[in-house]
Amino acid sequence: MNDDPNTRPAIRLLPGHDKRAASGHPWVFSNEVAMDAAAKALPPGTLVNLSSTNGKSVGVATFNPHTLVAARILHRDAATPIGEDFFAARIEHALRMRQKLYAEPFYRLIHAEADGLPGVIVDRYGDVLSCQLNTAGIALREAEFLDALKRVLNPQTIVLRNDTAARTLEGLASEDRVAFGTLAPPIEIIENGARFLIDPLAGQKTGWFFDQRENRALAARFAPGARVLDAYCYGGGFGIVAALAGATHVTAVDSSQSALDSAAASAKLNGVADKWRAVRAEVFPELDKRYGQGDRFELVIVDPPAFARSKKDLGPALRGYRKLARQAAMVTAKGGALFIASCSHQVEVEAFANEVRRGVQDAQRDARILATTGAAPDHPVHPFLPESAYLKAQLLILD
Amino acid sequence: MNDDPNTRPAIRLLPGHDKRAASGHPWVFSNEVAMDAAAKALPPGTLVNLSSTNGKSVGVATFNPHTLVAARILHRDAATPIGEDFFAARIEHALRMRQKLYAEPFYRLIHAEADGLPGVIVDRYGDVLSCQLNTAGIALREAEFLDALKRVLNPQTIVLRNDTAARTLEGLASEDRVAFGTLAPPIEIIENGARFLIDPLAGQKTGWFFDQRENRALAARFAPGARVLDAYCYGGGFGIVAALAGATHVTAVDSSQSALDSAAASAKLNGVADKWRAVRAEVFPELDKRYGQGDRFELVIVDPPAFARSKKDLGPALRGYRKLARQAAMVTAKGGALFIASCSHQVEVEAFANEVRRGVQDAQRDARILATTGAAPDHPVHPFLPESAYLKAQLLILD
Repeated sequence: MNDDPNTRPAIRLLPGHDKRAASGHPWVFSNEVAMDAAAKALPPGTLVNLSSTNGKSVGVATFNPHTLVAARILHRDAATPIGEDFFAARIEHALRMRQKLYAEPFYRLIHAEADGLPGVIVDRYGDVLSCQLNTAGIALREAEFLDALKRVLNPQTIVLRNDTAARTLEGLASEDRVAFGTLAPPIEIIENGARFLIDPLAGQKTGWFFDQRENRALAARFAPGARVLDAYCYGGGFGIVAALAGATHVTAVDSSQSALDSAAASAKLNGVADKWRAVRAEVFPELDKRYGQGDRFELVIVDPPAFARSKKDLGPALRGYRKLARQAAMVTAKGGALFIASCSHQVEVEAFANEVRRGVQDAQRDARILATTGAAPDHPVHPFLPESAYLKAQLLILD
Repeated sequence: MNDDPNTRPAIRLLPGHDKRAASGHPWVFSNEVAMDAAAKALPPGTLVNLSSTNGKSVGVATFNPHTLVAARILHRDAATPIGEDFFAARIEHALRMRQKLYAEPFYRLIHAEADGLPGVIVDRYGDVLSCQLNTAGIALREAEFLDALKRVLNPQTIVLRNDTAARTLEGLASEDRVAFGTLAPPIEIIENGARFLIDPLAGQKTGWFFDQRENRALAARFAPGARVLDAYCYGGGFGIVAALAGATHVTAVDSSQSALDSAAASAKLNGVADKWRAVRAEVFPELDKRYGQGDRFELVIVDPPAFARSKKDLGPALRGYRKLARQAAMVTAKGGALFIASCSHQVEVEAFANEVRRGVQDAQRDARILATTGAAPDHPVHPFLPESAYLKAQLLILD
């Protein structure tokens, strides 16, 4: 995919629609560009030179005439060739920041727009990289991008987890595969001083959720001497860190047997298998049952999958968070800590806080909020896309 | 101040105004109660039995007929006597939570409503307690409250920093004094592994700002090898933690000579005096001057006092944060980190984020937001008073 900045198709912003992009927003919506026949005919992912109404260059972007976000700006200087060198520079830039944050090579390396690479997610598991290439723009340049990853990081393995809803919207095929090297799962990563066994190819998303790293450490401050309930435990991220911090035992609940197996294997690896109690169950009925049995926990973690996947799910999702907060509060011991999270893009911080407050109130518990947090700092947010801060969480103490 | 629950004056909520208090909100506004001649005549701070329109008890509250917040609920069970035992139970409850969070006895011990003690702030500096008693309700019961503090914590010294604007609104005198024991400032505290010398009687607020503790640790992750600018440095909380984390030097700017002296003394105590450069100056012109001189820093911290003290200040305050973000961004090195905070109650998270984005944009810098944070977890928030989360901050990386 050789790119020559001088021969790219030109796309012009419509009058009155050029200010936002010019001021730094990385997206242009399809109703903001002159969508003539030529533009409509461009293959999804084509590199274009974007200009404002008066002809002034806005930068180089990838273009897709079929999606709501029509143009994603890659560089403000349209003369920049988009290829392996460009990708390598962006990866190096992202890497430097992570190396300042974390001593060990386990983190989200690329977080899309905020790292100057729209549509790209890369999680780094040491020598194994797990990627999502979510736009036609990056999918077309997969080879150059992977070459850039190899050049900068010299990985043993690159996995593509291209099974996302975003790809479907972009008209891209769903595929999970090892794109470079070989993979012998499980692989081991280190987070919060704990060791975890994960499978980048078969696990959820890219295989691990680094976004909760700092939150796991925060919750674990309430672990010493606590009975812990880790609901939606997945690979045991919260529970194992809590066990190592001094929990007396961890009840880990998930509906997925493979998640439970993986968490149990990690618990064993960390020497806390004796504290580990895996329960295969749906969380809502399990919380009900536990409450009825009189089970109480000094630290309760509920980290569910997204309840809202689109705007139309918002109402049911909010009711879901309220119910979850209520049920989780009911099994939280007096004076215990409750950590509750939402990774639904559609649910805003304030709405989430309201539902948690209502749920805790429904459980007739008084509460204080110790922290309102988001994703770990290796999941940066582009200042023009505050809505991309999908993860919101609260840590509460319940009287 | 003997309290007999059976002989307290009764205050009834007006029709249509009893739902919020009944559902858990700790405040009742003056237009929500039957403010008859008897109510109006109650001395500020009187304990009252609060009931809803239908006569159902809502709890025991302190009452002030002259303030916007007329009643502050202390306990949902009106039969609870309010005296030393009540205060001791609340203090013990607050203490247990802090002891889980922090290994050493240096923290905000009582954070008002969220700790069930409206109007009360207590910072713990080991054996020295520094208090603000901000409502007539607690001021009337100062003796019992201090006795409860002594019973639970056995402190050597209790300092009253009753020089707050809140007290003026409540019709209370401004006074700073040692209420128990003796004080020989400076005293030493430990935070983030650093030692600080503070003066609870003459310093700002209660003498120290524990609210930025976790944020200081976060910023310090970008300190290794960095030239650091700590603007509005006060006692050096950010700068000294950064120096210990490996900053090459710290330029500490404050307009107060006593703050600079205190910070320099702490720098010396921590063995980082050789890295410490104190500058007495107003921050805005100093940033301008530094930019002109070509001074750049890999880590810039701007932690100003509140720009907005009331709603009418909001416009100028927002412009102030934008200007501060711009000037701070201009002295941040390429790839460097900028930590910027606002402790203005009136400025909401989103508005603050917008001004920071604009300011950074004015400086023509691209940014990614690594974290949006608030106060440390020893400053809990009452779920019904989300607006009491006064501290908001962002950590950004600037390209």
